[in-house]
Order: sequence, then structure tokens, then C-alpha cells
Amino acid sequence: MELENLEELRKDMKIITKEILDLINQRMAIAKKIGEIKSHYNIDVIDDKVEQDIKNYLFQNPSFQNFDPEFLGRIVNLLIIESIKIQNLVKRDQIIQKNSHSSVNVESQDTYEPKNNFRIRTHIDVFNYAKYLSSLGKKVIHMEVGEPDFSPPNEVDQELKKIYSQHKYHYTETQGIRELRSKLSENLSILLEKNNKQNIKTNADNILVTPGGRFAIFSTFCSILHQGDEIIVIEPAWPACMDCANFMSVKTKIIKTNFDSNWEPDLTEIEDNITPNTKIICLNYPNNPTGKIISQKKLNSIIDIAQKNGSYILSDEVYMNYSYKDISSSLFYPYDKSIIIGSFSKTYSMTGFRVGYAYCTSEETIKSISKIQSLSLTSVAEPMQYCALSALNSDPHHYSTIMEKRIKFVCSKLENMPFKFNYPDGALYIFAKIDNSLRISDLTLITKLLENGLAVAPGSGFGLSYSNFIRISATQEMNQLEEGLEILNKVVSNL
Amino acid sequence: MELENLEELRKDMKIITKEILDLINQRMAIAKKIGEIKSHYNIDVIDDKVEQDIKNYLFQNPSFQNFDPEFLGRIVNLLIIESIKIQNLVKRDQIIQKNSHSSVNVESQDTYEPKNNFRIRTHIDVFNYAKYLSSLGKKVIHMEVGEPDFSPPNEVDQELKKIYSQHKYHYTETQGIRELRSKLSENLSILLEKNNKQNIKTNADNILVTPGGRFAIFSTFCSILHQGDEIIVIEPAWPACMDCANFMSVKTKIIKTNFDSNWEPDLTEIEDNITPNTKIICLNYPNNPTGKIISQKKLNSIIDIAQKNGSYILSDEVYMNYSYKDISSSLFYPYDKSIIIGSFSKTYSMTGFRVGYAYCTSEETIKSISKIQSLSLTSVAEPMQYCALSALNSDPHHYSTIMEKRIKFVCSKLENMPFKFNYPDGALYIFAKIDNSLRISDLTLITKLLENGLAVAPGSGFGLSYSNFIRISATQEMNQLEEGLEILNKVVSNL
Repeated sequence: MELENLEELRKDMKIITKEILDLINQRMAIAKKIGEIKSHYNIDVIDDKVEQDIKNYLFQNPSFQNFDPEFLGRIVNLLIIESIKIQNLVKRDQIIQKNSHSSVNVESQDTYEPKNNFRIRTHIDVFNYAKYLSSLGKKVIHMEVGEPDFSPPNEVDQELKKIYSQHKYHYTETQGIRELRSKLSENLSILLEKNNKQNIKTNADNILVTPGGRFAIFSTFCSILHQGDEIIVIEPAWPACMDCANFMSVKTKIIKTNFDSNWEPDLTEIEDNITPNTKIICLNYPNNPTGKIISQKKLNSIIDIAQKNGSYILSDEVYMNYSYKDISSSLFYPYDKSIIIGSFSKTYSMTGFRVGYAYCTSEETIKSISKIQSLSLTSVAEPMQYCALSALNSDPHHYSTIMEKRIKFVCSKLENMPFKFNYPDGALYIFAKIDNSLRISDLTLITKLLENGLAVAPGSGFGLSYSNFIRISATQEMNQLEEGLEILNKVVSNL
Repeated sequence: MELENLEELRKDMKIITKEILDLINQRMAIAKKIGEIKSHYNIDVIDDKVEQDIKNYLFQNPSFQNFDPEFLGRIVNLLIIESIKIQNLVKRDQIIQKNSHSSVNVESQDTYEPKNNFRIRTHIDVFNYAKYLSSLGKKVIHMEVGEPDFSPPNEVDQELKKIYSQHKYHYTETQGIRELRSKLSENLSILLEKNNKQNIKTNADNILVTPGGRFAIFSTFCSILHQGDEIIVIEPAWPACMDCANFMSVKTKIIKTNFDSNWEPDLTEIEDNITPNTKIICLNYPNNPTGKIISQKKLNSIIDIAQKNGSYILSDEVYMNYSYKDISSSLFYPYDKSIIIGSFSKTYSMTGFRVGYAYCTSEETIKSISKIQSLSLTSVAEPMQYCALSALNSDPHHYSTIMEKRIKFVCSKLENMPFKFNYPDGALYIFAKIDNSLRISDLTLITKLLENGLAVAPGSGFGLSYSNFIRISATQEMNQLEEGLEILNKVVSNL
């Protein structure tokens, strides 16, 4: 081993790097040509099959068996992303050229714009627009939001008044104050015992306290996923998982469920969509927006599929407190790659306190998610953690009792309107199918409702194929719900 | 343009992709050989000059003039990062092989392990170990932390007591409640006026409220940076920026400053290190750990360099309230790619409330950083935002007056010990150089101090070349500081 060789090797390195870039340059020229053909024949730029075919060819190639598979995946993804970018640019240029002769707006086809600044696609857009209407002095009944209207437990008020004098306003352990994690762990134990799973043990070290369930999902994704990985999402779904995946250049494979089969996910479909790149299967029961709870048996089968593939389960169980039939939980079927998300937002009506948590039987996984939290936040606000701890001294069951009554009420009214729905097993919503006879899409209906003072959420915000659904929240008092449903009835009667 | 050509082109694409990977494979084999030689002759793995040489050769090559320079840089950086990883692995393997014949601990060369579970490298490690010692009943004086010991303003206590009855516990706008952003904007206006910059206007829409300054940095990075991009960091530095960059596979180019030139950054060095891939120049004045404040003139010159290159400035100004000489701020030199980070943590001694903010004259930039916050958090805890708002009704100047007295006191004591330091212009720390005559590194000294009941931070936590420095925090009351400094004096006298 001679020191002089170093210079020689460095020269080789330089030449080979140039050759690599030469080839990449050629690849980009091909991408441009492909873009031109696709644009001419109006073919979609993204083609999952072609992409997978290239990946299979490369990943199974014996020459690359000594490659770090992550590095290989990353390079290939970078090349693919750049090639898609080039093809999109070509397509865009051609559309602009075409449209310079007409006045068609390229973007306005799949969204509705009631005012210049508002583009309504999801429940959050409706919420913002409803707020805007309110600011103009118009009364709007909010049946679009997922925020319960209850007051948080009184214990929280008492706690807030002690924060300052008790100096509970410092940095805490990144994972969260131990008292809170211990108490959460105890509560999980009680839940396990109630469901005859006392053999499963929980521990404070398996919990990470986060600023809301949403951050638990975000940090889990950041810690597990890399560009080019895949996740599975069962639709209709709260869009957070897919949004996070898009942000990270992670591909989302969608398993659709439907009204006619009572929102049951199909196991074979999940199996068919799983690949070596599937890192996470995302679950959410009780489900937002359908209120569906799947059986423990089905849940176990999904976890089995994940386990066989080495995939993680991310089980968003933030609506657990609002279960109107037997519950199921990933907690009851131990798998060290199941990550369970809980939150104080819905359970204790504490949305604005931003406290949630992630639970996993693997301490290592919790530690690695904690690293993202340490990097981005240091720790969760200590006053909020103590408020959450105080809430655990109260029983949130009464919130659920009220909510069930409201849901029953909304359903009873809806039965006499041109909507179909499966009675929710849990959560805060009714996902109602607009009768075909009305010949109206969710976004158009929602506009008419807004004009008449009612805000509900469009189905398409939970998956593009649900544009004939609306999500109605039962998060208001009975008289408000009644008034809202009267508006709904009036509007659909006059269509 | 024929549709049949599409299949032909796709085949070409596949072949060329394989060729690219073949070459990358060869490149990795060369990297391995280089690693072996470097390890044998104990040569540093990272060699910025060689790296720059390769980049110059490629970037100036006429064949690549039609390449998107960002894409080119990203690919080259990915290749270099992978090659460094391989070389480090080779080096590690060889060290392990060597040491298997002796009893030397591989890791113990650059870290210190007082107990099995503690590995001390940064001020946070010291903090955790000091906490552990406290839990054993040992008294430790905390001069390692960056957390002021003051109580937050009384206004905050009053506000906490009103949160529940005033229902301030809901989701808020992602950007933060408007009242808080307006008041922050007003305060920035007052600062501008005081510094004769009344021509520069601020606005609530240019502010994003975040859970701490750290999240403002994290979300800014997430919104601006891509894998393979570069940032510039001036050392010694709080490690957050580099940690975030590493997490995102972004390369950090380090500009070292030193004690002898009073921590002045060298403009030519910054210019020399800037590339088309330099997306952000990170600044932090008043500086943690040195307490340095650079002149407005120098700051403007750095912003000029950034502007010429189209790079962002990320100016962490969280210690602004603790300035003991004329302040300088990126705010005073308008550039629409300057992002200024502020926080309530140090200014109002409200670390545990986790409220900070990002300010930028480009609303678009703030909107795009907000998207990361919306994706990951929905919004900052509303009670904490109102506490921050209430704090703005108090004057934080008295904290600064106390801190300046403490800093003077610590300096007066240190003058009679074997340490050298530049008198801090601001912040909460003294960054003291250990006299060569002591023949002791920061980590060894810190252990001895911990054994004697004093915790201070190791210089190497702020940059590997500062292992002959310690950072002393003045965040304790005078009598504690005095006691701590007596321990320091005793320990260094007995070396």
C-alpha cells in the first residue's frame, strides 16, 4: 500500500465522476424526448409500472448486490425525480403554447374557488373560508371541524393556575416528563387488562410525548422513511399521512375502501400492494372520516401482513375514547414495529394544548423518533405536559356519551334526506353519500351550503374518489346541529 | 413524433441507468482503496481541497453547462457523502482490528465516559450527567446550561390563570395568533426606529410563530434545503444547524473563527466556500458560545455575499436582548432572503414555554416555512402563544442588566486563573481558552470539575477544533457563580 497511489486513485475518481455525469446528461436528454412524446399523446408523466420495472431490473441485478440498498434507492429515485421534473417542464411548455391561443385556465379544473383567495379542496379550506365569512358578519354553523366543543377537564384549569408558582416552565426530557409517561403507561395497562391482555406489559420508556398526535406521525415518518420508500394508506383517510409522505418524496400506495362493503379494507389488496419498499402501513380506527372500527381479528391479520414484510404499523388511535361498539387496538396484538398514536386533543377536548404521544414496544424505535424531536423542538412545552398529566386524573367517558347521542341525532335526521351512510362505530363524524339523484358533487354542494350558513367537509378531501360524500361533524351542541341539519335539508330539497 | 419510439426510449433509459450505477459501483471501489491508504497513513478522510478540485473540474466542464447546477451539485455531493461514508467504515474497521490486540477503547479517544451510560461530548451530555449526579445526592453547580434562572414576567402568571376561563385552548392559525404576530412586528418596528431604520417596514404576515427558535430553524431547513445542498456555518457554533443539516444529508461547510482574531469571521473565506449549492449562510450574533457581536458593516458584507449567490441568510438572533455593546441585526439590512430567528426562551426566560418565531420580508418564504409547520404540528399551543403575548407587555431589559453584571463578575475572577478569553459583547457565556501550560483537554478538565461539583460545557461541543476551550454560563445567581468559580480555581490549581 503506497502513498503515491493515492494521487493515482484520485485521478481515477475524477475521471469516473465525469463519466457518471456524462451518462446522467444523456439520460436527461432521453427524458426530454419521452416528455415530448407523452405530452403530444397526452400520456401521464408518472407511470408507476415503468418506474417499478426499472427498479426491479436494477435492484435484482447481481452487479449491485454489494450496494448499500438505501444508497442505490436514493440515487435511482433522484434520477427518476429529475426525469419527471424534465418531462413535466416539457408538458407545461406545450400546454402554455397551446393555451396562448385560447383563454382556458390550466389549474382551475379540479378545485372550486368561491373567492380569489380561497381554493376549497379539504375540510381545512372550508374551515378557513367559513371563518372568513364569519369575519364579514355572516353566521356559519361549523359542522366541518374535528375539534370537540367541550371544555377540557376542570383539573386542567387548576393546573394552569399552579404552573408559574411551581416553576413548571423549563426544558424537559425530550421524551417528555416521566410522571406523564408513567401515567399514560398505567392507563394503557388498564385498557389492556379490561380487554384481557394483562400479559402485555407497558412501560414509560416506550412512550414519547409529542406536541399533538400529528407531530407523533411526522417524527415517526422522519425517523423511518427515506426518499423513495413507500407507505400504504387506507382511504378514505385523514390526509396527514399522505401529505407527510409527499413532503418526503415517499410514495403512497392507496387501498380504497367503499360504502357498499361498509368500509372494510380488503386483505388481499393490502398483500398485493406491499413491496420490499413498503416501510409503513398506516391505520386509523375509529376512522376519520367514516367512523369505522375494524374487528380485532382483521386488525391482527393486517399486522401479520406487516410483520411478514418487516413493515411498521402506524396505528392512529386518537379517536379511541369515542368508540360506540367493541374497540380494537394495535396494542392488543404485540408487534415490536407497531407504533400507536394517541392524543389529548379529542379524548379530553384539548386540541389547543398540542399534546399527543407515540407508543411502541421497541424502546429503540421510540429513542430514534425522539431524536427527531430533540433535533426540531428540544422538548414539548412543560406547562402543556403538566396540563395533560392533570387531565389524566379525570374520566373522559362523559364526552363520549354526549357524542354518541349527537351522532344518533344527526343520523336520525339524515335518514330522511337524500343521503346514505353506515352508522359510525366511533369518532365524531358521519360520512354521508350524496344520493345520485341530486347530481351534485361534494364541492358544489359545499358551496351552496356555505352560502346558506352551514360548513361541512368535502369527501374528496379524504381521497379523490369520494367526491360524492360529505363529512358532517357532530362537534357542536344539539341546537346547533339541529339548525345545521335544517339548512342541509332545505338546500338539498331545493336542488 | 411516433408513439412507438416511447418503448425504444424507455429501453435506452434502462440501459443507461444501469451503466450509471455500474460506474458508481466502480467509484465506490476506488473510495474503498483510498480509505485503506488514508487509514494506513492516518490521513484525514475529509479533504475539502480535493473535494473542491473535483467540483471545479466538473462545474466548469463545457459538457455540463446545460445541467441544472443545483441538480449537478446534489448528485456530486451525494457521491462524495457516500465515498466519505465508505472511507470512514474502512478506517473504523482497521482501528477495531488494531485494538483487538490491546485493551484500548476505540471510542474513548474523542469522548469521555464517566459511567457506562454517559458519553460526554456536548453541553447537553454534561447537563444530563450533572442531573444524574444530583439524583445520587451530589451537589452540582450548573454553569453548563443555556437556560436563564430568572422567573418569567409576572404578566405570564396572570395570563396562565385566564387561559381556561377565556377558552384560549383551540387550534390557531398555523402562522400563529394575529395579536402575537402584530405585537412582535410592532416591537421589531421600534427596534428599527431606535437604530434609525424607520424606512424599513415590518408586518404581522412576515412572521411565523414556532414552538421555540429551534423549530424555526428546523422548519426553515426543511422548506429550503434538499439532499446534497450545502450550508455555511461559522464556528464555534451552537450545534443545532449542523445537526439539522446532517439529518437532511446536507453538507455543512465550516468557517472557523479563532480567539486570536477575536472571533471575527473572514469574508474571503466565506466567499471562497460559497458554491451554487450553498443555500443558506447561518449566522448567530450575539454568538453562543463566544458572546461575539460582529459589526453591522461586516454583517452587511456577509449578506451581500449571500445576495450575490442567491443564498438565504439564517440569522439566529435569540440572544439579542443580551447585548452589552452596539447591536447589529440582519433586520437592518433588508434582503428578502434573510430569515431572522427570535425566541422568548432567553429574552423573557421562558425556555419551557417553547415559543419562538421566524421573520422574513418575503411573505412567500414565511408561507412556505408555515407549510412545514402545518404538516407537522397544525399550530403552536394556543395557551403558550397567549403567554408569549402577555410577556411582550413587560420590559426584558432588567434581565440583561443582571446578566451583564454576572458576566463582569465571572470575567474578573477568570482573569486570575490560567484561562484567556475575549470579553463577551453579548449572550450568557464566557468562552475561555485553557492555558497550554495546563496540558489538559476540555473533556478531561470537565470530568475533574464534575467530580468536584461544577458543570461547565466542553468547547469541542461547539466545533471539533475548540477542544482547548470551556464555555461557562452565567445563568446562576451570584453566590452560585462564586462557589462555582472557586471550584474551578481549586481544580486548575491542583493540576
